[in-house]
Amino acid sequence: MFYAVIMAGGSGTRFWPASRAAFPKQLISLAGRTSLLQSTVQRLEGVVPAENVYIVTSESHSQALRGQVPEIPEENILVEPVGRNTAPCVGLAALQIRRREPEAAMICMPADHVVNDTTAWKELLRVAHRLVRERGRVVTFGIPPTRPETAFGYIRFGGQLQSAGPVPIHRVEAFTEKPDLETARAFLQSGNCFWNSGLVAWRVDTCLDLMQRHLPAVRERLEELDLAMGSGRYPHALAQIYPRLPSVSLDYGILEHAEDILGIPADIGWSDVGSWSALPEVLPADESGNVSVGIFLGIDTADCVAYAPGRLVATIGIRDLIVVATGDALLVCHKDRAQDVKRLVDRLEKDGLGQYL
Amino acid sequence: MFYAVIMAGGSGTRFWPASRAAFPKQLISLAGRTSLLQSTVQRLEGVVPAENVYIVTSESHSQALRGQVPEIPEENILVEPVGRNTAPCVGLAALQIRRREPEAAMICMPADHVVNDTTAWKELLRVAHRLVRERGRVVTFGIPPTRPETAFGYIRFGGQLQSAGPVPIHRVEAFTEKPDLETARAFLQSGNCFWNSGLVAWRVDTCLDLMQRHLPAVRERLEELDLAMGSGRYPHALAQIYPRLPSVSLDYGILEHAEDILGIPADIGWSDVGSWSALPEVLPADESGNVSVGIFLGIDTADCVAYAPGRLVATIGIRDLIVVATGDALLVCHKDRAQDVKRLVDRLEKDGLGQYL
Repeated sequence: MFYAVIMAGGSGTRFWPASRAAFPKQLISLAGRTSLLQSTVQRLEGVVPAENVYIVTSESHSQALRGQVPEIPEENILVEPVGRNTAPCVGLAALQIRRREPEAAMICMPADHVVNDTTAWKELLRVAHRLVRERGRVVTFGIPPTRPETAFGYIRFGGQLQSAGPVPIHRVEAFTEKPDLETARAFLQSGNCFWNSGLVAWRVDTCLDLMQRHLPAVRERLEELDLAMGSGRYPHALAQIYPRLPSVSLDYGILEHAEDILGIPADIGWSDVGSWSALPEVLPADESGNVSVGIFLGIDTADCVAYAPGRLVATIGIRDLIVVATGDALLVCHKDRAQDVKRLVDRLEKDGLGQYL
Repeated sequence: MFYAVIMAGGSGTRFWPASRAAFPKQLISLAGRTSLLQSTVQRLEGVVPAENVYIVTSESHSQALRGQVPEIPEENILVEPVGRNTAPCVGLAALQIRRREPEAAMICMPADHVVNDTTAWKELLRVAHRLVRERGRVVTFGIPPTRPETAFGYIRFGGQLQSAGPVPIHRVEAFTEKPDLETARAFLQSGNCFWNSGLVAWRVDTCLDLMQRHLPAVRERLEELDLAMGSGRYPHALAQIYPRLPSVSLDYGILEHAEDILGIPADIGWSDVGSWSALPEVLPADESGNVSVGIFLGIDTADCVAYAPGRLVATIGIRDLIVVATGDALLVCHKDRAQDVKRLVDRLEKDGLGQYL
C-alpha cells in the first residue's frame, strides 16, 4: 500500500487578503474551483487511497480544512500544536502510518502547490512507489527550472540509473539552499540542476532511521510521543512534547546529509504559486496578459492579476498591478512588490487592524 | 419667504461603483458622514426653512432620496418622469412654489456639489435674497477659478454695483459655454471670469416670465401641467406632458439671453466633485498625498484616492490611482482616466453586466 503525507500547516500570508489567519493559502481556490489542498488530494486518486492520506495541519486551520476534504478520515487529520517545519511534521505522520504498516511506502508533499499535468504526475508517483517498495530507495522529484529562481532550493542530479521504464532516474549529487542570482543562472545553464519541489517518497522505517541518524533528538521525542499515542494521555503529551522539537526542514535536517538518494525529473507543470504575481503561471491570460478570477472588465489594462471570486473588478489605464478583493478588504499592489504583502500583513497587526488578519 | 429648488436628478455615472442606477452621486457620502444632497439641504438651515425646500428628482432615485431627507415634506419631493435638463426641472418646481407665493424668491441649485465655507455661503445667500426680494433681480454666483478648467461654463463679470454691504455685486457681461484650454487659460488670467456654479436666485414670476420670453414652448406646456396640478389628473398629465418638453439648460435656454443679470463672486470653497479624481479637492490628504474614505493602509503609495466605506484598502508600491470598493464591485483606475469611468459604465450594459449598474 502507498501512503501520502500532505503538509498543510503553512499560513501563506503572501496571499492576503484572500488568505487569512484561519484560512491559509492551501485552502484558497487560487486557480480553479478547488482549493490547492483539494487539488493535491484529488491528484492522488487512483494512486493512494483516501484512507491512506494523512494531512498535517495547525489548530487554527483544522476546522476549515476538514470541511474541504470530507473524504479523508477524521483520524488522518493530524494537528500540530505549533509549527516545527517539515521534519517533525513528517515524523508525526510517520508514527501514525507505522502503527498500520511499519514498512509502508509514503509520499510526503506540501499542500500548496499546483501540478498541471496530473497524468504525468501519477505516472511518476507510480515509478517512485515501485522504487520505494521494491528497492527501499529514497526518491525526490526535481522540477525542470524555467528561470533563474532564487526563492527555491535546487537538487543537482548525477548519472542516470539503468532503468527499465521510460522515466529517467538519477542519483542525487547534492541539495543546495536558495542560491544567489548568479548561481541560479549557472544552475539554469547546467542542465542537471532542478528545483527542489519538496516532495520525497520513502518507506516509513527509512524515514525514521534517517531521522535517528541525522536528527536523533527529534526521533527520540517522537518515540516518547508514540508511547502516549492511542491513549488518553496523547493530547497532553503532544502539547508538551511537540513544542520542544527543533524547527527543522526535511531537506536541511535529513536529505542533505543522506546518501543514495534518487531523483526523478518531474516535468509536470509544477508551480509553487509563491505569491500573487505567480498566478499567471497557473491561469490562462487574456490577450492583454491579464489573468483573473471572478468577473473582470479591463479597459486599457495589461499584465494585471485580478482576484475577486464572486465580484466584479473593473480597471482603466493600469498595468502590472495585482488587485485582490474580498468582502472586507482589498489589496492593490505593484507586481514587483508581491513579496511585500507579507510585510503588509505584519503591519496590520501593529496598526491595530488585527481583525483583517 | 425664501424658497430653494434643489436639482437632484443626475445619475453621476463617473462615481461608479459607489454610484449606481438607483443610488446616484448626490446620495453618496463622498466627503464625510452626510451625502452631497444631505449637505446641500443642511447648508440651507437658517436661510430657507425645510418646508420651503423643493427637491426635483427621478423616479429611480426618489425612494432612496426620501430616506435621506426626512425633514423635507413629502409633497416637496417632485419626481420627473424623465430628465429634461435644468430649465424644465426648475419650471416644475416654480409651478409648485407659485401656488404658495406667486412672487416668492427662490434659489435654484444642483444637489451634487460641495461647499466648504458654509458661513460665507449663507452670507451670500442672504445678500442674494435681499437683491431678489427687494429689487426683483436675477442673481448668479461665480466661483473664483483656480485652474484653467475646460469642463465648466464661465460667467464674465462686468462693473461693480454700488453696494452698501461688504459683498461686491457685479453686472454679468456674458455666460460662456465650456471653453477650450487656451480660452480657459485666458479666462483664468483675466480676473473677471468665474466658474458658473449653476446656482441662480430669482423670483418665481421672474423665472417664469423669462421662460415665457426665451423658452415659450416650455412655459406653455408647464401651464398646461399647472391646470392639472392638485387634481387626480396630475400624474397622468405629468407623464404625458413632461416628456414632450425640450431638454434644455437654464444657462443655455434662459440666462445667456437675459439682460440685467447680477453676479456675486462666491469664494465659498466650492467644488463640483466631478469625478473620483476631484476627491482631493474636498478631503484632507495624508503626508503622501493620498485621500481616503474607509480604512486605508498604504505602503510606498502616493497621490492615490481610496474610497471604501467600512472596508480596508491596502496598497503597496502604487501612485496616481483611484481605488473604489463596494460589496460587489471594485474599480482601479488611473487618475488621468477618471473621466472614462462613464465609458466603463456604458460597457457594463453592453457586456451583459447590467446587474452592476
